[in-house]
Amino acid sequence: MGSEETVSESYDLMVIGAGPGGVAAAVRGRQLGAKVALVEAVHWGGFCLNRACVPTKLFAAAVERRRGLATAARMGLRDVGGEIDPAALFALKEELVSYFAQGTEGLLKAKGVTLLAGRGRLSGPGRVAVGESLYEANAVILAVGAAWGRPDFPGAGLAGVVHPGRLLEEAKIPASALVLGAGPWALEWAQFLAACGCRVTVAARERGLLPGFDPEIGQRLRNAWKNEPIAFLTGCRVVRAEEHPEGGLAVTLSVKDREETRRFERAIHFERRPGLEGLGLESVGLKDLRVNERLATAVPGLWAVGDATGCFPDLSHGATAMGVIAAENALGANRAYDPRRVPRIAFTSPQAASVGLSEEEAEEAGGEVITGTAAIAAGPMAMIQGAAHGVVKVVGDKRYGELLGVHVLSPFATEIIGAGVLALQMEATLEELAGAALPHPTIAESLAEAAREALGRTLFLP
Amino acid sequence: MGSEETVSESYDLMVIGAGPGGVAAAVRGRQLGAKVALVEAVHWGGFCLNRACVPTKLFAAAVERRRGLATAARMGLRDVGGEIDPAALFALKEELVSYFAQGTEGLLKAKGVTLLAGRGRLSGPGRVAVGESLYEANAVILAVGAAWGRPDFPGAGLAGVVHPGRLLEEAKIPASALVLGAGPWALEWAQFLAACGCRVTVAARERGLLPGFDPEIGQRLRNAWKNEPIAFLTGCRVVRAEEHPEGGLAVTLSVKDREETRRFERAIHFERRPGLEGLGLESVGLKDLRVNERLATAVPGLWAVGDATGCFPDLSHGATAMGVIAAENALGANRAYDPRRVPRIAFTSPQAASVGLSEEEAEEAGGEVITGTAAIAAGPMAMIQGAAHGVVKVVGDKRYGELLGVHVLSPFATEIIGAGVLALQMEATLEELAGAALPHPTIAESLAEAAREALGRTLFLP
Repeated sequence: MGSEETVSESYDLMVIGAGPGGVAAAVRGRQLGAKVALVEAVHWGGFCLNRACVPTKLFAAAVERRRGLATAARMGLRDVGGEIDPAALFALKEELVSYFAQGTEGLLKAKGVTLLAGRGRLSGPGRVAVGESLYEANAVILAVGAAWGRPDFPGAGLAGVVHPGRLLEEAKIPASALVLGAGPWALEWAQFLAACGCRVTVAARERGLLPGFDPEIGQRLRNAWKNEPIAFLTGCRVVRAEEHPEGGLAVTLSVKDREETRRFERAIHFERRPGLEGLGLESVGLKDLRVNERLATAVPGLWAVGDATGCFPDLSHGATAMGVIAAENALGANRAYDPRRVPRIAFTSPQAASVGLSEEEAEEAGGEVITGTAAIAAGPMAMIQGAAHGVVKVVGDKRYGELLGVHVLSPFATEIIGAGVLALQMEATLEELAGAALPHPTIAESLAEAAREALGRTLFLP
Repeated sequence: MGSEETVSESYDLMVIGAGPGGVAAAVRGRQLGAKVALVEAVHWGGFCLNRACVPTKLFAAAVERRRGLATAARMGLRDVGGEIDPAALFALKEELVSYFAQGTEGLLKAKGVTLLAGRGRLSGPGRVAVGESLYEANAVILAVGAAWGRPDFPGAGLAGVVHPGRLLEEAKIPASALVLGAGPWALEWAQFLAACGCRVTVAARERGLLPGFDPEIGQRLRNAWKNEPIAFLTGCRVVRAEEHPEGGLAVTLSVKDREETRRFERAIHFERRPGLEGLGLESVGLKDLRVNERLATAVPGLWAVGDATGCFPDLSHGATAMGVIAAENALGANRAYDPRRVPRIAFTSPQAASVGLSEEEAEEAGGEVITGTAAIAAGPMAMIQGAAHGVVKVVGDKRYGELLGVHVLSPFATEIIGAGVLALQMEATLEELAGAALPHPTIAESLAEAAREALGRTLFLP
């Protein structure tokens, strides 16, 4: 498509991709007075809403409800069963997802964003093609997200090797599954499938669960899952997958230099890579969407956010924050995106949530590090909830007492971490967190106790 | 008991009352190097642990589980029943309470606090008598809490008019109950009793639910409880109670200047007054325990915290915060207690939590006020949780953009409010809260959206 073609319309800002990053960028652009168009090829709300966050968090809520039934019986609730009916749950998922996708479309229209349905691609600097139409824009934000990849072992192309998007389409629970990875997404699926009666094996290259979180969180989660009907193979590599003569897959795994072959109905991978195919990056001389802290690419007027940038994947609130900043910068501001203020979360049961630096990261950053740990079981709310496992860990700088990281494994951890996000954002000290009047009885009050532990003066822990 | 009697022992700090305020004061005193004795007449852990917070929050958790069963069925969980067996629940309550009371005693010993069992009373300045023994102390902190009062209507002394402590002792659910009041404690009991099949009427003098919270929270809770099997009589006064000829009580109520008489098995009141009886206040010339912001009484070396002071009742985390500050001040510091940093909470379903100023309070304090409101139903987590009702409201100062108050009605609100506590403590602006990268999908992310609403630039609300 050459520059001599007719330009249908000109915009101040064009955004490609209507996931969390793109929606936020488009809305923010409108608020700043810009004329904005948003291009989306598949579904309004993007991957998060349609295929990832909303479905898996609904499933996590069902798992949590089911686990709650065990404590419900202990609390004197009669006749609580709790076998999950996956068909009903998948139907509810469809209902919620369509509701939210329609809501997103309605929201964008209400905000005055022009919606262009179709696959958007760059056609030179400041030009975006959608189907047969060509548009001009002063600024373009690429929020195209990621696309499914393929694992690198022989046999990864077999029909039994699937990504979770395929499981959502199939809408049924396999009898057995090999879950490849131990990150939040993989563990959420593992726990959901196991709760539905699937025989689940988690195989991870890493030595612990939840790589990227403070290692204590992964260790405690492993401990909390002692009785979970899930087998764990850590430090494990897939050698190859083959069709099993009796159906399903025969997967050969290497664990501690020993190979063994096991049969699974499905192997589930979570490989994602920036969704750059067909995006026309070559028309502006780019090969990838690496961005600086202002979220600018190497091409003036071209910005990128979210998974498309190849950093901080799978966190829609990270993409949202990037979308807002990219829109502001595209329209004249000069703001930096700080991934350290963006929490990592896992909707496992118990949940995990983490913001700022892990102990290791703080040590690598230099300075003398102190940590404080509070087992949540010391507080009454954990006992009331029947949550024996769980911990709050804080990481701080010893010299100035600055809070550097907050790490939580507990019921409601994804809600509780908000206090850690605010504390880090406002540059609170351990002393300030230690003095916060967090309500009693809650799990959240362990945040202050962990800070007091770091300072050597717990109130409720021996 | 005169000053010529033998003094058994001298302490740097004596604390009377082992509830949340007293325990915190004693532990903090030890951490500061003081020789500390703690006097308790009834049970270690005090009223909160033994008769209030822990029991009612356990009951609230059972109510929440039961409500969760409705959404569990929608989520595809089969055979979920959910009739509460109160006997099992009361037994679990006993188990938890003894566990925590023993834990509190063990903690205090581990911290090196001398425990004196018995009723403590002042015997002149710097002197405390426990039974036949007399002790000296450089500083005394009174953390004696509150005692049951009696409502002021005729017939309040009848056996059917009870406080919730009596209900815990009886350990059974009345067939019908008149709940007198609409504060957190009253509503928690109302909802629990109703969940157990009791026919509940809430009668409150106030016009709305949850007086003391921002009125919007009470209004939304009332709306959320539309289908709750609870009758509400607001703006209502009890004229008199009499024995009903067929058993129970005949209670005459005045509602909108109209009197009517109804029959209830129990009328439940929540009257509490500072527990000053037999405390020997006359020996130091005091009539009450009013304190200044340093928590000092009018008598040098005599401090008071928690419900005993007559301010901010029923909040154990408030008492804990006061206990820490009183101990520090008693041992030489000069810290002020700021009740505006202490959240109010209600373990209703949905929960309510609030910190800082309501809109009305902010307006009374002067300055131009702006507010922002985000209905939580706009976010996916509320839909996932099946929580249609609920709201986050923020109150701010228009001129400087300072955040003045955060008010939440939602599932997990008591955990979520921690972010509000930190934001207020760190003197965050609306702008800063609006930019917080709160995780998605959560209820907590509505905090940032409410701040954006106040600033006129919502991302997810039309």
